[in-house]
Amino acid sequence: MEPYTRTIYYYETDRMSIVHNSNYLRLFEEARLDHLKKCGVDYLEIEGAGILIPQVEAYVKYIKPLQYGCSVRIRVKLTGFNGIIMKYEYSLFNGNDIDPSATGTTSHCFLDEKKRLPLSIKKRMPDVYEKMKTALFAQ
Amino acid sequence: MEPYTRTIYYYETDRMSIVHNSNYLRLFEEARLDHLKKCGVDYLEIEGAGILIPQVEAYVKYIKPLQYGCSVRIRVKLTGFNGIIMKYEYSLFNGNDIDPSATGTTSHCFLDEKKRLPLSIKKRMPDVYEKMKTALFAQ
Amino acid sequence: MEPYTRTIYYYETDRMSIVHNSNYLRLFEEARLDHLKKCGVDYLEIEGAGILIPQVEAYVKYIKPLQYGCSVRIRVKLTGFNGIIMKYEYSLFNGNDIDPSATGTTSHCFLDEKKRLPLSIKKRMPDVYEKMKTALFAQ
Amino acid sequence: MEPYTRTIYYYETDRMSIVHNSNYLRLFEEARLDHLKKCGVDYLEIEGAGILIPQVEAYVKYIKPLQYGCSVRIRVKLTGFNGIIMKYEYSLFNGNDIDPSATGTTSHCFLDEKKRLPLSIKKRMPDVYEKMKTALFAQ
Repeated sequence: MEPYTRTIYYYETDRMSIVHNSNYLRLFEEARLDHLKKCGVDYLEIEGAGILIPQVEAYVKYIKPLQYGCSVRIRVKLTGFNGIIMKYEYSLFNGNDIDPSATGTTSHCFLDEKKRLPLSIKKRMPDVYEKMKTALFAQ
Repeated sequence: MEPYTRTIYYYETDRMSIVHNSNYLRLFEEARLDHLKKCGVDYLEIEGAGILIPQVEAYVKYIKPLQYGCSVRIRVKLTGFNGIIMKYEYSLFNGNDIDPSATGTTSHCFLDEKKRLPLSIKKRMPDVYEKMKTALFAQ
Repeated sequence: MEPYTRTIYYYETDRMSIVHNSNYLRLFEEARLDHLKKCGVDYLEIEGAGILIPQVEAYVKYIKPLQYGCSVRIRVKLTGFNGIIMKYEYSLFNGNDIDPSATGTTSHCFLDEKKRLPLSIKKRMPDVYEKMKTALFAQ
Repeated sequence: MEPYTRTIYYYETDRMSIVHNSNYLRLFEEARLDHLKKCGVDYLEIEGAGILIPQVEAYVKYIKPLQYGCSVRIRVKLTGFNGIIMKYEYSLFNGNDIDPSATGTTSHCFLDEKKRLPLSIKKRMPDVYEKMKTALFAQ
């Protein structure tokens, strides 16, 4: 699957002149939702069905700083999926670098919006379940 | 009414080493919601009644830059209120400065969450209307 | 000149389910720096020469809310430039809308990084001055 | 040491009506810099000496969501310090909760701003080294 790419914005930097550490989780989110879309899954349709997918865990390793104007490329891999929990892995590259500037992982849980309880997407949206399963094994 | 005060955070700065211009609207929002609270109005209660108050206009004049660690003091004034529209004026001071580091104005509209149409808070929440009217004339 | 376009990110929304008002200034910044680049001006080269261009004024009119997933198109116009001050005008459109979802203006001042005083870019970087003058009249 | 406390701002929420996952790293940063200050260490003095302390690793466990208006309390512990690397541990509580709403860790590296290489704060700022060592064992 094509990696997610975009340019770093000015406002993403801090007084160290580098991208603020918190913004990596935002970049991962952009890349993850782009990955979901490329898997044929419509995030807004899931929310429309009263299902939320909050982040339950995150890890970031900052290797080389990113600056305003950098073109970043983010490889996303779905590394775990059981219908309730999704696990993702990220590698973020600066320009055409071969070594990543950052790596990370996040976990997410399907949640019933009203009950605020975990749910299995298999029962509620079987097509989403199948697409995620396919994505899991396609890598 | 006591001005709203807090310290500038590291992540609010950008690579110019000053608070990013967009964050002034966030500071104004903090000060405005604090002002509302001091007027006895519970914002979450308004949202709980299916009413939103989106911003419809904003103006900021950036006079002197703010840096990480600055203690800012924001004076808020309700300058207009007719039950549908609220207008606020802000003066932001750095430490004990007499001259403001920034000034601004914002306007907000009471909106029915479902119909996405403007509404008069006078009919829907008369107590909020009275508190706002009091705040308007108290200044 | 081609408008600046991108998709709205999830983290740009707030609990009203719409793009937070402060993020419009970030979108304007992205569009402005893109416009500068299309005019042949290298922002990092200007900063490298010890010159900053802080925002000195901003105005936003929020017309129709933006949501996660919206594709926004931002038209930028340089409406004033005298070598010291730049003025920009923005129209932000949702998808293929003909009417804007937001409009706004910003002003910026060329500043000597060390002296923290306004400067004329005409003397310090004549090529930037010429490119900006061209951009001003090209519209 | 007294925990760091503050109220959650409106703009920190996203369309799930909860604090966006990236903002936890910002809250941790606020709490960490507050902790540093309480240890008698002046962050701006360190930067003034040409030393940066970028984040090199971060982990967050999101347990219970936070909402606008929540009062959060963050306990910070310096769990590692060798003059080059600092490790912190965080527990974030909602109101008077006994169980944390989130926990996390971050690591930071002292860096020479010009050389962009790790350095030992022991040689460059022995007083900072002593204060950090004291903080490490005080807990």
